[in-house]
Amino acid sequence: MEKEKNEKLHMARHSLAHILAKALTQLYPQTKLTIGPAIDDGFYYDIDLDVALCPEHFGAIEAKMKEILNKGEAFVRKEVSKEEALALFAGNPYKEEIINELPAGEAISVYYTGDDFFDLCSGPHVESSRNLQNYAYKIHAVNGAYWRGSEKNKMLQRVYVYAFADKKQLNDYVTMLEEARKRDHNKLGRELGLFTTVDYIGQGLPILLPNGAKVVQLMQRFVEDEEEKRGWLLTKTPFMAKSDLYKISGHWDHYRDGMFVMGDEKKDKEVFALRPMTCPFQYQAYLNKARSYKDLPLRYNETSTLFRNEASGEMHGLIRVRQFTISEGHLMCTPEQLEQEFKGCLELAIYMLKTLGLYEDASYRFSQWDPENREKYIGTAEQWAEAQGTMEKILNNLEIPYEIGVGEAAFYGPKLDIQIKNVFGKEDTLITIQIDQLLAEKFGMEYTDKDGQKKNPYIIHRTSIGCYERTLAYLIEKFAGAFPLWLAPTQVKVLTLTERNNDYAAEIYRKLRDQGIRAELDDRNEKVGYKIREAMSMKIPYLIIVGDEEQANNTISIRGRGFENKSGLLFEDFAKRLHEEIDSKKLN
Amino acid sequence: MEKEKNEKLHMARHSLAHILAKALTQLYPQTKLTIGPAIDDGFYYDIDLDVALCPEHFGAIEAKMKEILNKGEAFVRKEVSKEEALALFAGNPYKEEIINELPAGEAISVYYTGDDFFDLCSGPHVESSRNLQNYAYKIHAVNGAYWRGSEKNKMLQRVYVYAFADKKQLNDYVTMLEEARKRDHNKLGRELGLFTTVDYIGQGLPILLPNGAKVVQLMQRFVEDEEEKRGWLLTKTPFMAKSDLYKISGHWDHYRDGMFVMGDEKKDKEVFALRPMTCPFQYQAYLNKARSYKDLPLRYNETSTLFRNEASGEMHGLIRVRQFTISEGHLMCTPEQLEQEFKGCLELAIYMLKTLGLYEDASYRFSQWDPENREKYIGTAEQWAEAQGTMEKILNNLEIPYEIGVGEAAFYGPKLDIQIKNVFGKEDTLITIQIDQLLAEKFGMEYTDKDGQKKNPYIIHRTSIGCYERTLAYLIEKFAGAFPLWLAPTQVKVLTLTERNNDYAAEIYRKLRDQGIRAELDDRNEKVGYKIREAMSMKIPYLIIVGDEEQANNTISIRGRGFENKSGLLFEDFAKRLHEEIDSKKLN
Repeated sequence: MEKEKNEKLHMARHSLAHILAKALTQLYPQTKLTIGPAIDDGFYYDIDLDVALCPEHFGAIEAKMKEILNKGEAFVRKEVSKEEALALFAGNPYKEEIINELPAGEAISVYYTGDDFFDLCSGPHVESSRNLQNYAYKIHAVNGAYWRGSEKNKMLQRVYVYAFADKKQLNDYVTMLEEARKRDHNKLGRELGLFTTVDYIGQGLPILLPNGAKVVQLMQRFVEDEEEKRGWLLTKTPFMAKSDLYKISGHWDHYRDGMFVMGDEKKDKEVFALRPMTCPFQYQAYLNKARSYKDLPLRYNETSTLFRNEASGEMHGLIRVRQFTISEGHLMCTPEQLEQEFKGCLELAIYMLKTLGLYEDASYRFSQWDPENREKYIGTAEQWAEAQGTMEKILNNLEIPYEIGVGEAAFYGPKLDIQIKNVFGKEDTLITIQIDQLLAEKFGMEYTDKDGQKKNPYIIHRTSIGCYERTLAYLIEKFAGAFPLWLAPTQVKVLTLTERNNDYAAEIYRKLRDQGIRAELDDRNEKVGYKIREAMSMKIPYLIIVGDEEQANNTISIRGRGFENKSGLLFEDFAKRLHEEIDSKKLN
Repeated sequence: MEKEKNEKLHMARHSLAHILAKALTQLYPQTKLTIGPAIDDGFYYDIDLDVALCPEHFGAIEAKMKEILNKGEAFVRKEVSKEEALALFAGNPYKEEIINELPAGEAISVYYTGDDFFDLCSGPHVESSRNLQNYAYKIHAVNGAYWRGSEKNKMLQRVYVYAFADKKQLNDYVTMLEEARKRDHNKLGRELGLFTTVDYIGQGLPILLPNGAKVVQLMQRFVEDEEEKRGWLLTKTPFMAKSDLYKISGHWDHYRDGMFVMGDEKKDKEVFALRPMTCPFQYQAYLNKARSYKDLPLRYNETSTLFRNEASGEMHGLIRVRQFTISEGHLMCTPEQLEQEFKGCLELAIYMLKTLGLYEDASYRFSQWDPENREKYIGTAEQWAEAQGTMEKILNNLEIPYEIGVGEAAFYGPKLDIQIKNVFGKEDTLITIQIDQLLAEKFGMEYTDKDGQKKNPYIIHRTSIGCYERTLAYLIEKFAGAFPLWLAPTQVKVLTLTERNNDYAAEIYRKLRDQGIRAELDDRNEKVGYKIREAMSMKIPYLIIVGDEEQANNTISIRGRGFENKSGLLFEDFAKRLHEEIDSKKLN
């Protein structure tokens, strides 16, 4: 049902792209059309036109589209030979290029919309533009785009259009986008003093300012403590190693392009590389002693910094970065322990997501290898079948609803990825739990089993929370910067009504700090309304306001969430409620 | 006085080197002598000899030395010409090489010890070997050493001898060494499962195993919390940057050889380098907003990982490493605030050292620039005079007893270094506090002063604790691995007397864990004596032993420090004492 609906929407959007093209060629007959595909929220069309289109033109183009749609013209498919096609599109070098690349001898389809417009297209389309009359569309941007994405080619104009089945859906979408833009961590995170980036340091290398660093510190401690309770042992291993290590692990062959390498194997005695993962570093803790089945499971966690040499164009705020920190863990166990331990890892991840308020945005993907791309992986088809079979069994036993992602596995084994969508609907992996039966052998990791035999343990690779930078980004967007009290960089701000109240305010401020509450004091000689607005814009959860009345009665007034605005409160009562809210990690 | 005494000892040691040389040439006439200098704990002599000396030979050599000393022969200096010298040492290519390198025309001195031995030497020496008769010496090692330290030359034998003014001093020194070897973090730290190193990862890249990572985690949290109380704001900045950054900071010109560089400026669009310090990264927090004098002082701290490309030969355990983590901070202030803020930084450092029990081993060094090596520094002589003058005034006002280290300054300013000696007497810098009036201008860091003028702040660069790896090393050595309770990786181990007591022991264990005590349980079916010895060898502070009697009476028995061994204790009473000891960060 959902799929059919999507296909219908996709076809309508692509048909609307033809209507746009017809409108453009009527308004600007010199327009050279290229391609115009449907996309997630509508469609675009790349055109070669000597008039630079800008928002002032959008209304006229939309009106022309409306006029065309009102005619209710049929979409008619015609098949032509290559020679006929070339004749039809003579003078348009883009269409000629496409036509010349089509296989010889096969019929080429052209779609007519009315007698006066046709476009090269494989279809399918709606029957008639009448079918599109309920659809709502809105041109929202024109960007430059190179023909076929290559800098060597001419820069074209890409006309972006939102298109939905009706006006309400379009309006909802536009409203969602506006809301999303307000929550965009890449904008809001900077405004709230959570992070910044600096050109001369580099893209994908965000600088966490005190407010952001505080949130990450709180999350890290929470995660480390929770992991310790669940029997994980902390390690702290180096962020780089000689190439020798990566040759054993397989990263040198399978991941070298993604790594930052220091030195040149042809010239230098030692070549180092920054680590893109923690695995073989953490294995050293296992390898430090002879192990018996009685020692298993062994669970190692680390607040681990990793480095990935991503292309500059792919960087995005705190979500796509070159350096990030993550709670990475490796668990060594016997085959009998695997399911139970996998479940433990999953429960931990779910607990983290729920505590942070992100669980409702998460979905599961079972990432498998791609047997068509064998060179991307280590191990045999049999080993992959076994590992994936084991994982499938476990996921089914745990009744995890998952989608399958072919080709999304790690090079050493299948993964359960916990996916999350950002405010713009873009999906990324936040947490991953992987089963690996290959690397233990490569690194000589063994245990003596009950039968006295040396065996390789299963390894579960897992994260228990997304990388802290990315998680911070999702939290900013989720809460529009208004973090739950336990995570708020500043929890309470004390504001004075007049300078007469400065000493009383300072006393309240000191009491808060002494109780471990992250407090600020604003005793500037400014209007209280101004001070309140400023504090609210920084999304500080609670404001304590003190004036002559509060001072005389030894009370405080409060503005903030979870409380209606209140006067005449005793400090101790308020502090008690603060601590309760913090200790319970209450979500907003 | 001390200096004279040292010179006398030095001369005696060098004279003893001649006695050793005479003894060796009498025992092995084919010996070719090279050089034999005095060193910190005695002397050595490098010889070319076809007999491989080993400990079995040491007694005979020492006896021969004694025999020579008993003759009471004078040390007689004779001056000879270069030709005469070459004739005297004909057949010894090492001495010939030295003689040929001496400036032409100058007299060459030779020292005779008796008529039958002479050595090329500039002196001075004791008058007679009679003066050496009270000295005590002990050959303790023979190592290979290349002639003149070059791999291209022949490998000689270096005979190492301890030598002191009397037998007691020698014995004290040997005892101290034995004790030091037991405490050597590079040995004990591995035995206690605190860290390891792995060839294929690399030298100077220690792996902190769970026990070591736990101690570092506890220290880091303690430091971050204490710094927060004292008004420091946490940042978290990237570990690498484009070369552009280091060109502004001056590191590219003044520190490039010490950095790990990724990429090649001739080929790559972007060249990155791992950071050897936090300064210009943390400055971005300051630069993120316009600043006024009202915002100052601004104190930024970071649990910061740094990288230094040290030569392989210089690596040592946790003390000389290529990657380390440190609480690095930068404080921006006005000139008027400088002294008070410097004092605050020093007080923080002293508080840390005292809490960790390292203060008594610390001394101060005022590290100044070397005006003879101007190219090592940025800034003018006037700027250095001002910065060093300011620092001197502050140190004198604070009555800090310091030694001066010429040429030990940072390239941008003078430092107060807190030095610490390890168990072997080797000194290293643990903590540093620096005054910098140059970098703020380079990075465009300004504040608007009361008079409306833009000014550059002073910057204090400081660490508040030594790098965590190095501090861990000192703690291991200081406490011989028996950490104060608050830092002990495992604080309490519960041991069973018989399998009948397993449930009771497990209950005690769970109660400890629930109270946040780091506990282990040993309910193996082994003799309790064996289990106790094993736990004591791991330096676990407290052992709880439970048998039938304890179980019947609902009590526990204790072995551990701070308590005499005790039976019949109530768990709750013991737990209370544990928490008191932990909360007070009591030293052993």
